[in-house]
Amino acid sequence: MAATRLLSDAEVEKIPALKAVFDDIRATRKSDFVNNFWRGLANDPALLKRTWEQVKVVMATESAIDPLTKEMIYIAVSTANGCSYCVHSHTAAARAKGMTDAQHGELVSIIGLAGQTNHLVTMVPVDPEFEVK
Amino acid sequence: MAATRLLSDAEVEKIPALKAVFDDIRATRKSDFVNNFWRGLANDPALLKRTWEQVKVVMATESAIDPLTKEMIYIAVSTANGCSYCVHSHTAAARAKGMTDAQHGELVSIIGLAGQTNHLVTMVPVDPEFEVK
Amino acid sequence: MAATRLLSDAEVEKIPALKAVFDDIRATRKSDFVNNFWRGLANDPALLKRTWEQVKVVMATESAIDPLTKEMIYIAVSTANGCSYCVHSHTAAARAKGMTDAQHGELVSIIGLAGQTNHLVTMVPVDPEFEVK
Amino acid sequence: MAATRLLSDAEVEKIPALKAVFDDIRATRKSDFVNNFWRGLANDPALLKRTWEQVKVVMATESAIDPLTKEMIYIAVSTANGCSYCVHSHTAAARAKGMTDAQHGELVSIIGLAGQTNHLVTMVPVDPEFEVK
Amino acid sequence: MAATRLLSDAEVEKIPALKAVFDDIRATRKSDFVNNFWRGLANDPALLKRTWEQVKVVMATESAIDPLTKEMIYIAVSTANGCSYCVHSHTAAARAKGMTDAQHGELVSIIGLAGQTNHLVTMVPVDPEFEVK
Amino acid sequence: MAATRLLSDAEVEKIPALKAVFDDIRATRKSDFVNNFWRGLANDPALLKRTWEQVKVVMATESAIDPLTKEMIYIAVSTANGCSYCVHSHTAAARAKGMTDAQHGELVSIIGLAGQTNHLVTMVPVDPEFEVK
Repeated sequence: MAATRLLSDAEVEKIPALKAVFDDIRATRKSDFVNNFWRGLANDPALLKRTWEQVKVVMATESAIDPLTKEMIYIAVSTANGCSYCVHSHTAAARAKGMTDAQHGELVSIIGLAGQTNHLVTMVPVDPEFEVK
Repeated sequence: MAATRLLSDAEVEKIPALKAVFDDIRATRKSDFVNNFWRGLANDPALLKRTWEQVKVVMATESAIDPLTKEMIYIAVSTANGCSYCVHSHTAAARAKGMTDAQHGELVSIIGLAGQTNHLVTMVPVDPEFEVK
Repeated sequence: MAATRLLSDAEVEKIPALKAVFDDIRATRKSDFVNNFWRGLANDPALLKRTWEQVKVVMATESAIDPLTKEMIYIAVSTANGCSYCVHSHTAAARAKGMTDAQHGELVSIIGLAGQTNHLVTMVPVDPEFEVK
Repeated sequence: MAATRLLSDAEVEKIPALKAVFDDIRATRKSDFVNNFWRGLANDPALLKRTWEQVKVVMATESAIDPLTKEMIYIAVSTANGCSYCVHSHTAAARAKGMTDAQHGELVSIIGLAGQTNHLVTMVPVDPEFEVK
Repeated sequence: MAATRLLSDAEVEKIPALKAVFDDIRATRKSDFVNNFWRGLANDPALLKRTWEQVKVVMATESAIDPLTKEMIYIAVSTANGCSYCVHSHTAAARAKGMTDAQHGELVSIIGLAGQTNHLVTMVPVDPEFEVK
Repeated sequence: MAATRLLSDAEVEKIPALKAVFDDIRATRKSDFVNNFWRGLANDPALLKRTWEQVKVVMATESAIDPLTKEMIYIAVSTANGCSYCVHSHTAAARAKGMTDAQHGELVSIIGLAGQTNHLVTMVPVDPEFEVK
């Protein structure tokens, strides 16, 4: 199901602001495939551009957290938010960046454990020891 | 605020099943401090034991994902679930395991970005390319 | 997939308490189409009636917030709750009430931004300046 | 409680990249008050700048959705995400932009109703009539 | 913190529509104590009345689910939604209706387990065997 | 859609650690049917075993909360978390354990009501009367 139109390549080609972003997505990812997420955002060129630029900066290769860990963190947030689309797309991305079956199993275990303890802790006040001053 | 009693060390000492878990928490973490989460769970000795054993296994040092990355994944899930307690406790744990300010800044950036795209994607179907067969 | 039966028009016709609500939905909306949400609730006539009466009052035309804004607020909550059904149905409703592409683009942008900052703020205490006394 | 340091004005003053954003926040809002959200983000100058620029663009006065409606949409998302901080700060902002008591009452009513129907609809498939092609 | 005014008994007394609901809350619960939830809703008399009437009907003593089970279901939803207020108020209510420590321990265990499996299942399609036709 | 492989019976048969759990699931439930949830977890034998053992203990017949109530609490958490899979599987389980249509209607009513009041209460501080000391 879709609640918004997904723009085709033919439609994107006609609008320079969209074409520029799609070209950059393809060049950055070294792949012709542009997934539905971007085709939905393409209904609003400014939102598309802003979102892509943010993704490029935050998920960039050169940084204090390695690219595979970044994808695993992304999967963790997306799972907790129940975002099936993002779990699918970022699991694919994590595998493409070398996530092993053992790492995936542990990732899922941590996510499940955190999901559990997050539910267990609602009744308890934060210890003052954890406060940053 | 607390919606359940937090057991004191004196109370825990009197019940062998609780004392055994608290002793193991202290030995495993090499610290006398036992935080409120465990003091709340201590109302149900079986739940306390089951939860601690799971935490010990999943967050163990020897595994396919390093201990700091595990803590960052934990923070990611907890933030998405809006679990302030867990964000506080696992941020403290991540810092104790060497998380730098730069890594924390990036972690927060990824969490925020994922939170945003999770909200943007609700209207779009998953691409068949992401399916695992 | 459905985890509950969806009542057909033929079934609804036979039960006066259901028929009365379905008739009112059709009359109020000036449309013969009754969507699955109501067909699922129809398993419990009292729940169906209570929910419809509440929808009628809260989403009524005459009020301090205009009908299109109400639909956009509904979409915002539903997106944050990851409720795909409600995002689809209320986006259709908002378009029927005149939501332009530009408004939809901005709505999605605000929802995404709020989703992001909601994730960024977990670590910070509320400023006393925001308290209402 | 805070899980991250909140930078003081004195600290912000010493770092040009932070000072530039704080100056712009004050100038844009015509107010000296900078709330904790920004003081927490200030731990990562790039994240601070990126977030503020996004807020400025998305919440800008000139657009297809009026400023008060934007704030109400923001409150709706934040309530659904259980983000107490954002509910407090954006309720203050909405009131500053003219939200009446009657509008606030209706906003809360719509949020509550959507929260309810979001919970009621989990068992039901989306009607094909709502799909955008 | 409060993002809305909490009406005092003196203020409620002056407005017949509010007084009627507060009187009914006190009579139904056989207690003079009216908690903050209702004092916040009292800013909008229609919302207050609608919400109270719904609570009275749904949580009524005479029904297919016993009153204590109803409170435990309420706690379950509220915990999953991270609603600290509701966890506190309905835990107090469940205890007042006879919830034992053993039942509370099991309730928390089920909530924690469900929280975990809800996080584990994001990657898996629903079995056709579970569909209701 | 699936973001992880679902192991077939043939694959499970070849790995003793997996076969042992699947055999126990079938024996405990007195049914040959093993649903997708377990087939996905089977990618990580340790996670599969840990999760099944926990489910067996927490959902066991002999305890302070009866089996049907446990399933209803499970449905409540899963609905609030928007976990369609778990709503489907545990609604089937609850029906198998005798949930009547009247009970299901009330369960859904309570979940919906809690979902609503959880959204209404974000702006209000917890009453000190609800605190456990």
